Amino acid sequence: MIDKINYTYSLEFTVRDYECDLQGIVNNACYFHYFEHARHQYFVKNGLDFALLHKQGIDPVLTRAELEYRYPLTSGNKFIVRLSVERKSRTRIVFHQDIIRMPDERPICKAMFEAVVLKQGKLLKNDVLMDSIPHNDTGKGEE
Amino acid sequence: MIDKINYTYSLEFTVRDYECDLQGIVNNACYFHYFEHARHQYFVKNGLDFALLHKQGIDPVLTRAELEYRYPLTSGNKFIVRLSVERKSRTRIVFHQDIIRMPDERPICKAMFEAVVLKQGKLLKNDVLMDSIPHNDTGKGEE
Amino acid sequence: MIDKINYTYSLEFTVRDYECDLQGIVNNACYFHYFEHARHQYFVKNGLDFALLHKQGIDPVLTRAELEYRYPLTSGNKFIVRLSVERKSRTRIVFHQDIIRMPDERPICKAMFEAVVLKQGKLLKNDVLMDSIPHNDTGKGEE
Amino acid sequence: MIDKINYTYSLEFTVRDYECDLQGIVNNACYFHYFEHARHQYFVKNGLDFALLHKQGIDPVLTRAELEYRYPLTSGNKFIVRLSVERKSRTRIVFHQDIIRMPDERPICKAMFEAVVLKQGKLLKNDVLMDSIPHNDTGKGEE
Repeated sequence: MIDKINYTYSLEFTVRDYECDLQGIVNNACYFHYFEHARHQYFVKNGLDFALLHKQGIDPVLTRAELEYRYPLTSGNKFIVRLSVERKSRTRIVFHQDIIRMPDERPICKAMFEAVVLKQGKLLKNDVLMDSIPHNDTGKGEE
Repeated sequence: MIDKINYTYSLEFTVRDYECDLQGIVNNACYFHYFEHARHQYFVKNGLDFALLHKQGIDPVLTRAELEYRYPLTSGNKFIVRLSVERKSRTRIVFHQDIIRMPDERPICKAMFEAVVLKQGKLLKNDVLMDSIPHNDTGKGEE
Repeated sequence: MIDKINYTYSLEFTVRDYECDLQGIVNNACYFHYFEHARHQYFVKNGLDFALLHKQGIDPVLTRAELEYRYPLTSGNKFIVRLSVERKSRTRIVFHQDIIRMPDERPICKAMFEAVVLKQGKLLKNDVLMDSIPHNDTGKGEE
Repeated sequence: MIDKINYTYSLEFTVRDYECDLQGIVNNACYFHYFEHARHQYFVKNGLDFALLHKQGIDPVLTRAELEYRYPLTSGNKFIVRLSVERKSRTRIVFHQDIIRMPDERPICKAMFEAVVLKQGKLLKNDVLMDSIPHNDTGKGEE
């Protein structure tokens, strides 16, 4: 399943010990951080800057998240976060992301995030982001 | 949809400013923290202690999470996290949780978490938890 | 030493399990969070709102922190964070804070934070905060 | 002052957007995370593993922290964390650390951390760590 997705970006990480909780494994919330950082770095790479967008009143926000936890990360692990972006409709953007432990390529977590873009709280067409970043185009323009 | 769930527990929170990110709203990962803390406090209330379970080699871990973000929390907000627990099968436990802003009761986030219980990495029957906490029983015993 | 400080505010907390790291105790960075949240709630109580101040271009920022860790907090602990505020000079504000485990009143952490107030990056007289909140006045007006 | 310290290790970081708070700058607690991660990676580099030490009942813990915040980090910043280690006495270890923004080498934060090593809560001679890692030796053996 994972293999069928054409990921367009990947970013390397090392687990930081403070990210592990009392079970000795990375706390579930940290995966959110990893996924978010990879998305933002992908945007940076394509010339988009979240802090700058926010100052212009433009805020991409998540509307939905789905995560499948396959195997936990723990202290000392290295891993990559991969992503691909899909324009789902005029407003919705879908990120397919997963985490692969390195170097053994063990699947750790598979996720889907749906986002929209708001300007002062009002729904914006996602062109403002999508025109700048490589993505798959499945939205035919209708909502 | 939310209204049809019979929540068996709720816990009050106040947004802490450090939980807000540069968009001025609570970072998505923090909702994970809120939901986790509510689950653990529900367990504590029913005599179960995560730290103690871990010392006995017993670790409940998430296998799946689904979150629907309806409206963002921001600085100064008060809210409650509600939950109900369902025994999905002999091994799987499902938590239905949502976040309601107070006092206006605005729905903020609706979530579903699926968990299993591991003992030294081996799948355990969930009786070890379920026998101690009030829950709905939809699993007929088969996997 | 702790006893000689006249604390003007205190706030109750419960350790959240995600705040514990793989050593099974609260991670050192979380104490910063506890102290910050107590400071901000003290401000809220006195009519000051950090998010609103930021929108007006006014940002209190820390310039110095000193923490003495006496005994670690762990899963299930309840504690209070106490604070007193001192106007050190026209620009500098000093917060004396400590953490006391409850109900046994065991001293956990003692801290001092020094802050200044910036407006668009420029140093501001601290009256903008100090006029609104009860504090000790040791700064004679000179820097 | 900073220049006089002979740092023996440095580690590169990039600010992650979730580390910024509603003021748009990196939250003060995150500096603790950066410093801790650099210390642990220095230990890893010298063959010491915090998770493994913990399983053996050996836990280095902080007893004191002092941080001087000179200039805030913000979204997009790259920086290095440098450190040097000093054996202060038979039991106390002192870490001198600072954060330098790159590539302009602007000093961001300067810090001192004091730690001891506990075995099941009992103070241990710090040889258990110090024998494995390059450090300055100022402790003459007396406490």
